[in-house]
Amino acid sequence: MTIKIALLGFGTVASGVPFLLRENAEKITTAAGSNIEIAKVLVRDDAEKNSLIEKGHQYNFVTSIDDILTDSDIDIVIELMGRIEPAKTFITQALQAKKHVVTANKDLLALHGAELLAIAAENDVALYYEAAVAGGIPILRTLVNSYQSDKITKILGVVNGTSNFMMTKMVDEGWTYDEALAEASRLGYAESDPTNDVDGIDAAYKMVLLSQFAFGMTINFDDVRHEGIRNITPEDVDLAQKLGFVIKLVGEIVERKSGIYAEVVPTFLPIEHQLATVNGVMNAVFVESIGIGEAMFYGPGAGQKPTATSVVADIIALSQGINKGEKLLPFNTFTRDTVYAQKEDLLDKYYFAIETEDKAGQLLLLAELFNAEKASFEQVFQENIDENRASIAIISHKMDLNQFDSLVEKIAALPGFTLRNTIKVI
Amino acid sequence: MTIKIALLGFGTVASGVPFLLRENAEKITTAAGSNIEIAKVLVRDDAEKNSLIEKGHQYNFVTSIDDILTDSDIDIVIELMGRIEPAKTFITQALQAKKHVVTANKDLLALHGAELLAIAAENDVALYYEAAVAGGIPILRTLVNSYQSDKITKILGVVNGTSNFMMTKMVDEGWTYDEALAEASRLGYAESDPTNDVDGIDAAYKMVLLSQFAFGMTINFDDVRHEGIRNITPEDVDLAQKLGFVIKLVGEIVERKSGIYAEVVPTFLPIEHQLATVNGVMNAVFVESIGIGEAMFYGPGAGQKPTATSVVADIIALSQGINKGEKLLPFNTFTRDTVYAQKEDLLDKYYFAIETEDKAGQLLLLAELFNAEKASFEQVFQENIDENRASIAIISHKMDLNQFDSLVEKIAALPGFTLRNTIKVI
Repeated sequence: MTIKIALLGFGTVASGVPFLLRENAEKITTAAGSNIEIAKVLVRDDAEKNSLIEKGHQYNFVTSIDDILTDSDIDIVIELMGRIEPAKTFITQALQAKKHVVTANKDLLALHGAELLAIAAENDVALYYEAAVAGGIPILRTLVNSYQSDKITKILGVVNGTSNFMMTKMVDEGWTYDEALAEASRLGYAESDPTNDVDGIDAAYKMVLLSQFAFGMTINFDDVRHEGIRNITPEDVDLAQKLGFVIKLVGEIVERKSGIYAEVVPTFLPIEHQLATVNGVMNAVFVESIGIGEAMFYGPGAGQKPTATSVVADIIALSQGINKGEKLLPFNTFTRDTVYAQKEDLLDKYYFAIETEDKAGQLLLLAELFNAEKASFEQVFQENIDENRASIAIISHKMDLNQFDSLVEKIAALPGFTLRNTIKVI
Repeated sequence: MTIKIALLGFGTVASGVPFLLRENAEKITTAAGSNIEIAKVLVRDDAEKNSLIEKGHQYNFVTSIDDILTDSDIDIVIELMGRIEPAKTFITQALQAKKHVVTANKDLLALHGAELLAIAAENDVALYYEAAVAGGIPILRTLVNSYQSDKITKILGVVNGTSNFMMTKMVDEGWTYDEALAEASRLGYAESDPTNDVDGIDAAYKMVLLSQFAFGMTINFDDVRHEGIRNITPEDVDLAQKLGFVIKLVGEIVERKSGIYAEVVPTFLPIEHQLATVNGVMNAVFVESIGIGEAMFYGPGAGQKPTATSVVADIIALSQGINKGEKLLPFNTFTRDTVYAQKEDLLDKYYFAIETEDKAGQLLLLAELFNAEKASFEQVFQENIDENRASIAIISHKMDLNQFDSLVEKIAALPGFTLRNTIKVI
């Protein structure tokens, strides 16, 4: 038997799929219980088609999605175009045409996943997307298969390779943010508009997906607090190092008594924390649970072959179900009603980097302000910037998110003080 | 519907099973599609039974395996007694009685797995054992489910918590082997006879199982070269640190052109290698493959709750199959004929720690000996031990395993020289 697949798009990741199907043919065929055949490949237009044919690619290239939708021999559609449209329309149409779909499109799934999963369910087909979180790390399927006996209490993730590459350079080499961004751009890790990577948006998309698999709840993208790495200075990095921390952009999802909460924020990680050693463009997801305790899953977050490997793992899993002739389960079957945590339940330590006039009584003003919020200092470091200005770094004791938000607002409003940065401390 | 299970043994790990079934009841029931009920618990004798009842345990304790074998309501038997017998007999009988079996017994599986899997297949039942390798790390199921699209080329594993705890103390604190062993014993990590842990035997068992899941081949336990950490001295650790390495007991399985090879040996790991940061009793399996590239799976290697979590994950997977009424697949479906690598295909660098009389020409003798084997030095360190003796440490260039074995034999036979230790360099 042969399972026929169609690729939407033939960019870098998509061309990794035939690589694996060829290099690992025997194992894949045995595991899938079928040959996997690339029956059609959708490209933009005739120009792209002709250019690919000239390069020697011998696929059945088509330029209209209808050629795939109306082809009843095609079992699985693989969407690897990225962005929201036309990917969303094509996936919707494929599901409605009763074709299973595999995608790596995290933006789309984070923003419109519920809608697409409902369409899949209505049409008795499945939508799989292992590659959408941390590219090559088999994290979603592992949460589905191996954590169903366990109860997860916390996820910590370094899931954006670009910002982690930059933070690694800022920590190891003492580079500024701008220097790190320039190098990331030069190496092709950062796009011309790096917003999604450096402001935590890409990582926040992944937190939405991880919240579904790890906690059975869907956190709306708009409810994932996210802050990026733009404000981090060599002074922040230095102080972190002196205190035994490294700074990374960390996504966190926790379940507390009142519910769940997710954020992506710069974080002081203790150097002995397993996540602190995840460097460069590598990704890792650290999982805390009542059964296993602490575990971490480390690997490449992107790249042609890693992403294609996750895509082909989905194709194999779907093929196994198709060959059994059974109704395929949704990728993630763990669902509960989403309940958000109350801010009082979210306790953390924070680092505050503040600049102020260098005159007597400034620290006292800050201490009074913290005291009024029932918050307190764990450590304070004061240094002169020049004759007139001083830098004050505070590591606080634990406070809840209401206290933190209120303090940030009040420090920012304090005449003569500049709140330069805040960083969560783990 | 209810799936009834029987526990063989009610030691530490076994009592973690009811903990999870209780604390995580809703999620487990939903995932399994059934209630999971502990129908019977086999204990040694009436004395143990009475003692457990006095402690408040309210299970249906039985003292004869026949009470479980003849109970047609019992679907799954969970063997958590450890050791070879009577576990082997009981598992055999349970499979023959058409009951699925879950076990964490790596010694048994490494030595008699093929036989037990054949009995399972004959009786159309399944034998699952996620907990047998690296306790709480969901590595076997991940290799089954997520690496079927990929081709693994190398596995590196820190898979023995006791020896890794000791090596961590020897590296971080400069302790001797004896000091580290004393502390491991005091904390209950090392048994009164620590042989299996410190001589690499336990890790070698795990390499046998990993070879099946990662490479589809079964390496016989007797073919896993294994050497432990007894000979490692603070001098070895010091030199490693000076050169940017840490020493760990590492299991390695590689596939080369000629076939596969597994060994468990002390290893110089570069400090920037992800495995080098796996400390204390924690375990990790580092996987190299043509698709994903480099990935690592980190977590607890043992312990009540982690091991029970893996056991319950197996119970859920079996329950899902039982509820579908379908024939259950073997845990691992990836099998190829086992072909062993030729020694000429196995190239590594090695560290040689040698003691000799402190007189002229000794290093020349060693250089001649290496040269005769077509091997060569990359780095040499010489130090006086006392007035009469010198210590020579050599890091070689890459050599194959024939060259290495021959050199070890010849250095050991060289009058006036003592080959104190050899360690592989990654």
